[in-house]
Amino acid sequence: MTAMRYRHLFGKTLRKTPQDIKSGGLALLLRAGYIRPLGHGLYSCLPLGLKTAANIRSIIREEMEQVGGQEVSVPLVNPVEIWMRSGREERIHADMIRFSDRHDRRYVLSPSHEEAFVELVRHGLRSYRDFPALLYQFQRKYRDEERVRHGLLRLKEFEMKDAYSFHRSPSDLNNFFPKMFAAYQRIFARCGLDVLTAESGVGYMGGEKAYEFLLPSEIGDDVILQCPSCGYRANRDVAKGGKQYGKGLPQLMEEISTPGIQTIEELSAFLKLDRSLLMKSIVYRTPEGYVMAVVRGDYDISEEKLSSYLGKPLLGYAGPSELASLGLVPGYLSPLGAGDAVTVVVDDSVAGSVNLVAGGGKPDTHVGNCNFGRDFESGHVVDIAMVRHGDRCLQCGENLEELRAIELGNIFKLGDYYTRSMDLLFQEENGKVLYPHMGSYGIGIDRLLGAAAHHLRDDHGLVWPASIAPYRFFLMGIGKSESVRREVEQLYSSISRDTLIDDRSESPGVKFKDSELMGIPWRIVISTSSLEEGRAEIFDRRRLTKRLVPLADLRSAISALREEA
Amino acid sequence: MTAMRYRHLFGKTLRKTPQDIKSGGLALLLRAGYIRPLGHGLYSCLPLGLKTAANIRSIIREEMEQVGGQEVSVPLVNPVEIWMRSGREERIHADMIRFSDRHDRRYVLSPSHEEAFVELVRHGLRSYRDFPALLYQFQRKYRDEERVRHGLLRLKEFEMKDAYSFHRSPSDLNNFFPKMFAAYQRIFARCGLDVLTAESGVGYMGGEKAYEFLLPSEIGDDVILQCPSCGYRANRDVAKGGKQYGKGLPQLMEEISTPGIQTIEELSAFLKLDRSLLMKSIVYRTPEGYVMAVVRGDYDISEEKLSSYLGKPLLGYAGPSELASLGLVPGYLSPLGAGDAVTVVVDDSVAGSVNLVAGGGKPDTHVGNCNFGRDFESGHVVDIAMVRHGDRCLQCGENLEELRAIELGNIFKLGDYYTRSMDLLFQEENGKVLYPHMGSYGIGIDRLLGAAAHHLRDDHGLVWPASIAPYRFFLMGIGKSESVRREVEQLYSSISRDTLIDDRSESPGVKFKDSELMGIPWRIVISTSSLEEGRAEIFDRRRLTKRLVPLADLRSAISALREEA
Repeated sequence: MTAMRYRHLFGKTLRKTPQDIKSGGLALLLRAGYIRPLGHGLYSCLPLGLKTAANIRSIIREEMEQVGGQEVSVPLVNPVEIWMRSGREERIHADMIRFSDRHDRRYVLSPSHEEAFVELVRHGLRSYRDFPALLYQFQRKYRDEERVRHGLLRLKEFEMKDAYSFHRSPSDLNNFFPKMFAAYQRIFARCGLDVLTAESGVGYMGGEKAYEFLLPSEIGDDVILQCPSCGYRANRDVAKGGKQYGKGLPQLMEEISTPGIQTIEELSAFLKLDRSLLMKSIVYRTPEGYVMAVVRGDYDISEEKLSSYLGKPLLGYAGPSELASLGLVPGYLSPLGAGDAVTVVVDDSVAGSVNLVAGGGKPDTHVGNCNFGRDFESGHVVDIAMVRHGDRCLQCGENLEELRAIELGNIFKLGDYYTRSMDLLFQEENGKVLYPHMGSYGIGIDRLLGAAAHHLRDDHGLVWPASIAPYRFFLMGIGKSESVRREVEQLYSSISRDTLIDDRSESPGVKFKDSELMGIPWRIVISTSSLEEGRAEIFDRRRLTKRLVPLADLRSAISALREEA
Repeated sequence: MTAMRYRHLFGKTLRKTPQDIKSGGLALLLRAGYIRPLGHGLYSCLPLGLKTAANIRSIIREEMEQVGGQEVSVPLVNPVEIWMRSGREERIHADMIRFSDRHDRRYVLSPSHEEAFVELVRHGLRSYRDFPALLYQFQRKYRDEERVRHGLLRLKEFEMKDAYSFHRSPSDLNNFFPKMFAAYQRIFARCGLDVLTAESGVGYMGGEKAYEFLLPSEIGDDVILQCPSCGYRANRDVAKGGKQYGKGLPQLMEEISTPGIQTIEELSAFLKLDRSLLMKSIVYRTPEGYVMAVVRGDYDISEEKLSSYLGKPLLGYAGPSELASLGLVPGYLSPLGAGDAVTVVVDDSVAGSVNLVAGGGKPDTHVGNCNFGRDFESGHVVDIAMVRHGDRCLQCGENLEELRAIELGNIFKLGDYYTRSMDLLFQEENGKVLYPHMGSYGIGIDRLLGAAAHHLRDDHGLVWPASIAPYRFFLMGIGKSESVRREVEQLYSSISRDTLIDDRSESPGVKFKDSELMGIPWRIVISTSSLEEGRAEIFDRRRLTKRLVPLADLRSAISALREEA
């Protein structure tokens, strides 16, 4: 941390934001001179933003080294071959940018770096003696996101700390995993953020367990289900909960004419029936055939649960021509008589309810009083629905609550998926040749910066903790007296390293406002009158409190604040 | 700099290199565990390589801050629009990767960041009070190079420190430029490298002056002309020198039958004439028409000089069909009767010589005794040839020498090309609205690492200066005695921060070799016998000398070495 004069600082505060962003952390980062937009999903860092990000990186570095991490780096651009080896090349679609060079070699802009790290360790992890290994990097990623969001929260090009651990066995991975969990908790706490942890999706790649570190936030993309009683907490994608089943005696099936009615919303309104009395069927394309997912109309399908159950990725919804080739009619899909060309996976909410209305399998027709077991069957009855607010906690019976949050980091037991597919082997002590087990651990740096800005603020601007603030002290004088100027300059040269001195000829009010907007933790003010009293004022940005400190004690007061930070 | 146990270090030394690279700095970086290849023109950094690069970055940061630099960052991926605004989109071809996102927005992988920096400062440099500004970043670039070279020297994805300065006027830029020049000299000196500086090309974009910082090297891509007497030094692309003109009386022109003879080599052999008696003509495509460059057969054309003279880029050689459309015959090109559709630019070596053999303008024919002024004319007589070893220094008359070198950095007065084309204006004190003048300043981090490894080595391995070495001290014991082990561990815990301790149960010889291969500046050895004498041995990696230090003085000896570094 070096000192700076505000006059020289590049990226002054702005009176209004350069974009059409009125409020929140993003507006403050723009107005306070931390970041600038460059394009859709692309941001640049100004000096203040860069310093804050650098402080975040330092904290992460310390905590990674603490658990044995060693810093490395791999290129953003990867040869496509390593992605083909892992099998992800054919599984990741619109999100990943591919290109060819002038010699027709093919590359990708990596959205993550599992493959490159497996290649990195290929010559380094050969014997059981080389384990465990934790390697991390700070590197750019690129994801061609469908939509970018809220400035720094979902960028196309973004920086991540990604880490990968390699272990001799699943139990070694299991033993290491809690250390990383604890390191992540320390990282976010040191950044001044109160995070929650929740179980999250492990996908179809044989991952075993994953956790997210989340900041509860109204601008978050993630929805968490949590139990207020026992503490169970999981991402909606994977949360488990007891669904309420509709009870009653099965009635006779009946055909219902539903001209032009194709969606659950329309059907519910048309029949004046609650959505919990309807059946929703969606057909997905997978690498090996089609899958029809059936849930009750009041639930959404969790593609994560479905994909994880199937052990394969979903490649999107089947289109009209694909449905036609399966003998299915869009808008009137139904598991009744769906045929063998499509695998039917039925959520237990459907299997456990009675007398549901399903698609009729032909245009303008639905069928009432459908009952699983009697009218249709499937060997795949499983939980594929997204649990909701009010569903029962399976651990304690209490009602689950929904919470919106920003995912700041995740930790993931990958198992041996990558080492096995990419053929990375090591020799055990007993001479056996085995695949190492991997964990992966990510934190988005820009997202962390954006989330912190949104949550560490008040009406006056940003409120950084000293641990990540670009400068700890904002130093200014009031009045034109030479003695004030001299005192301020002397103080600056003696404490300068983490200090921004405001040497402009602006009014005190302007300087107060700017220092508060920028979120510098402590403002030190020397005025003609305070100087006469032999004192300086220290303003605490977070508490919005002032105190007067004798000039003779100022340096020790500043040291004490640094210690506290 | 933190401490490390060799047992835990990821990236052990290798007995042989993993690639077919037998010698030089690249082989050492691979063998000593600094880097690993990932693909064609793509390398990853292992912990030792990353630490060395981090030390290089720290030196650069200090020197940039010293001249008022502030660190920022812009994305590697740029919207194509800003490249269209500057005009470079249509001027940079195979080197630049372009792609479209899922919404058909177009982007480039930036090979450099002038445009992005102009956008970055758009809201920040509005008044004369905001100047000067020097902003820098460490960021990846991507260039789809025709050929990659010698490992780290020419990569596709590489890291640069790039800096851009903004000034109120050309004279302000001129005043700032020498400060940057001096900062660059300090940077390379602190990395232990003896660099030369040379004038280099400013291109066609209105740049005014450029210098390269070069490390003389047999593996370098650049050729420098220097005068051993007066010190004149410039890249061959732009070097000026006195050419020897052939003298004599003009003879009568004569047609010569040259069936199938198309190249200067063939013509020289066929006619048994020295190449200095021949004329070489090449036609280039430019954004506005075609240009024929004519030099004497013993010179090569400097495309840099030609492009700079024309004030426009060369887009490559004109192909056969293009030549045909101009009425020209490939292999028999000639300025004689070239017609108005092509601009003829004649090197002074041609204009000043007599009785040259030129192409005949029709197949299988050349013309002898061609003389500029008599047989053909051009308004464009100018120096467009690459000066050679032995040409005369224009400053002092001494013969110039050629030197091969690696370009490690460059500094460049860009003038107002970018600010003007991208319409970046500021208001002067007198109210006038002006375009700022820019400088740009680059250093390739990977290239610097690769060049340093190649030049700072001996038969035993790498020889880092303490300023950039991954660790300063390599600590080891000899013998199995518990007292040696205890002494070594005590020393390690007291001096640990920049120390690598070798705690393996390998022989002393293996440890000696590894420490020398890795290039750690000082090796501290405690053995049973040295311990009995109460002493430790300090081995100086660069000087290959040993000295014994009393244990009581060891800590102060270590501190002294740190001070020296």
